[in-house]
Amino acid sequence: MSFRFTLHRTDASARRGTFDTPHGPVETPAFMPVGTQAAVKALTIDQVRSTGAEMILGNTYHLALRPGESIIRDLGGLHRFMGWDGPILTDSGGFQLFSLAQNTKVTEQQATFRSHIDGALFELSPERAIAIQEALGSDVVMVLDHVIALPADDNAIRDACDRTIRWAARCKAAATRSNQAQFAIVQGGLNPELRVWCARQLAELDFPGYAVGGLSVGESPEEMYAVLDVVCPVMPADKPRYLMGVGTPRDLLNAVSRGIDLFDCVMPTRNGRNALAFTDEGPLRLRNQVHQRDERPLEVGCPCLACRHSRAYLRHLFLADEMLGPILLTHHNLTYYQRLLAGAREAIEQGRFAAYMDQKLKPAGG
Amino acid sequence: MSFRFTLHRTDASARRGTFDTPHGPVETPAFMPVGTQAAVKALTIDQVRSTGAEMILGNTYHLALRPGESIIRDLGGLHRFMGWDGPILTDSGGFQLFSLAQNTKVTEQQATFRSHIDGALFELSPERAIAIQEALGSDVVMVLDHVIALPADDNAIRDACDRTIRWAARCKAAATRSNQAQFAIVQGGLNPELRVWCARQLAELDFPGYAVGGLSVGESPEEMYAVLDVVCPVMPADKPRYLMGVGTPRDLLNAVSRGIDLFDCVMPTRNGRNALAFTDEGPLRLRNQVHQRDERPLEVGCPCLACRHSRAYLRHLFLADEMLGPILLTHHNLTYYQRLLAGAREAIEQGRFAAYMDQKLKPAGG
Repeated sequence: MSFRFTLHRTDASARRGTFDTPHGPVETPAFMPVGTQAAVKALTIDQVRSTGAEMILGNTYHLALRPGESIIRDLGGLHRFMGWDGPILTDSGGFQLFSLAQNTKVTEQQATFRSHIDGALFELSPERAIAIQEALGSDVVMVLDHVIALPADDNAIRDACDRTIRWAARCKAAATRSNQAQFAIVQGGLNPELRVWCARQLAELDFPGYAVGGLSVGESPEEMYAVLDVVCPVMPADKPRYLMGVGTPRDLLNAVSRGIDLFDCVMPTRNGRNALAFTDEGPLRLRNQVHQRDERPLEVGCPCLACRHSRAYLRHLFLADEMLGPILLTHHNLTYYQRLLAGAREAIEQGRFAAYMDQKLKPAGG
Repeated sequence: MSFRFTLHRTDASARRGTFDTPHGPVETPAFMPVGTQAAVKALTIDQVRSTGAEMILGNTYHLALRPGESIIRDLGGLHRFMGWDGPILTDSGGFQLFSLAQNTKVTEQQATFRSHIDGALFELSPERAIAIQEALGSDVVMVLDHVIALPADDNAIRDACDRTIRWAARCKAAATRSNQAQFAIVQGGLNPELRVWCARQLAELDFPGYAVGGLSVGESPEEMYAVLDVVCPVMPADKPRYLMGVGTPRDLLNAVSRGIDLFDCVMPTRNGRNALAFTDEGPLRLRNQVHQRDERPLEVGCPCLACRHSRAYLRHLFLADEMLGPILLTHHNLTYYQRLLAGAREAIEQGRFAAYMDQKLKPAGG
């Protein structure tokens, strides 16, 4: 079997593992940079690799709309298309139906929506979401889920949750490839009973991995942590656990402490393009006047491309509207996230994760 | 002496030389990528180096306005500021006074203008242009010249030409550093007598290098080549000759054949950002439908970052508005220019430059 999740060590609820895939291993807990449209924004694929990333994300919705999955399939699949030979996870498009598509209508059979690019009518069923991801050839394939806006009443959440479970079963039945692993997605809003119920139902379907979805949609960090507190204990311990679309450094460490293994988020890349750099001393806003003559790097000892330069130079690049500013800060932020999780892995191995988390979050709270 | 120009070989009028500077040698004929605002647009400094570039360009006007030369000086000079340890040439700002600044007024003493960024009033005299470039610490410093729009009547051209010569003498007198070489700029529009006269006057002032300025401002290639035909023979043979702001691959080879040693131009970088790739088969427009499923690289055998990918992927990046498209095509085009001139150097060494030029220009004319 080409997929395997090996749990090396736990430290309280934090887990140190290895997730083996057909395109190589991923040491967990791990952060996956987001390459929505078959590119991690602002970076060459070599630069993505040099941040320490082992696995990256693509997106079913975006790639089906543009360039179309048949083009990627005919050109040898997503790995070859974007030049990444490591593992790739593709999101199913469920979140984009909720956040980006226009006029989305969900029936039991499928979601119908209009493309945010050109208004063209599209249909996305569980079977179609799997077929697209099989054409893309990603290693991990996400089931199509039904994401709804929060806050919502319990009936609406339960309805979306039920549909997510039924759609997960249809996704599983639709799979035709043995070299892809499907992850199911636990929904249930902020309702602990629904979350637990959803996780248990999905666990019975026996997927190779499980995700927590429908978070990071406007709730507070504490509400999110409360969901993880109830849902992680009922997710299968021998499978990887993926928290979708989260989050700040503080969110990541809090989730790791509750037993999450995989993350993705646009935060390091999007913030990098907007001149915000993550550091252990808290975020730096590079457009600020205070950096005008500062010859220090963003962070001493950081091996990224930005930290070869002064803060003054980085500030200049943003004020002068040079693409190099977003490029360098994206590389820094992704490197920061990778180092944060490398430190977490080491701390779990050494049984000192709680102390590591305290130390990382004390100065500024990420 | 830290500057030296060594002429190794000529092939008809084409010259193969080495220009030694305090930051290392430049093999000529050479193309200098443009780093106007202390960055070559879209590339990290390592990527600039990996194109094969040995010397790059910065701009006095832009850097004086933003971030201000005192900041760059206080941070250790332009080399350290942008992380480039090779030779740097800084343009004087003469061309920007003509092309970019607002309400430029030129008197014998100086040019007065308003910043294109914030409308602030600035003065630029020959002495000030040199002082700024001394603060920047570039290796080659251009004198301040008086550029005018073409076509213009002979009196206006003669007037600007006279002023350029007087300003060159003032620039020379203003220099206080021994580790910078000043290049004078030959003006004279399309008037052959004025060009020859200007070149001879400047030659008498004995500069370490000479440039041909005021071209690539709307005249035809043939008009430009006609200027080079008359001006190159009267430029000192033992000094490097730099053709400013030029041009297409065809322009470069035509200028090399007439005895030019150094070039700069925004064409490879600007066109790269606009999805146009230079190849030996002629330019490719990557947005075109024809590339949709094309798995070939831009050019077989090209070592650039773009040519690791298919044309289909590059097209997708531009249609999806991913920064990686401009990044990869900038790297390709600069690599193309460097390879074009590396081929020219080799051809001159082997006495077959005319054949090389024929071969490169036959398919599409660049």
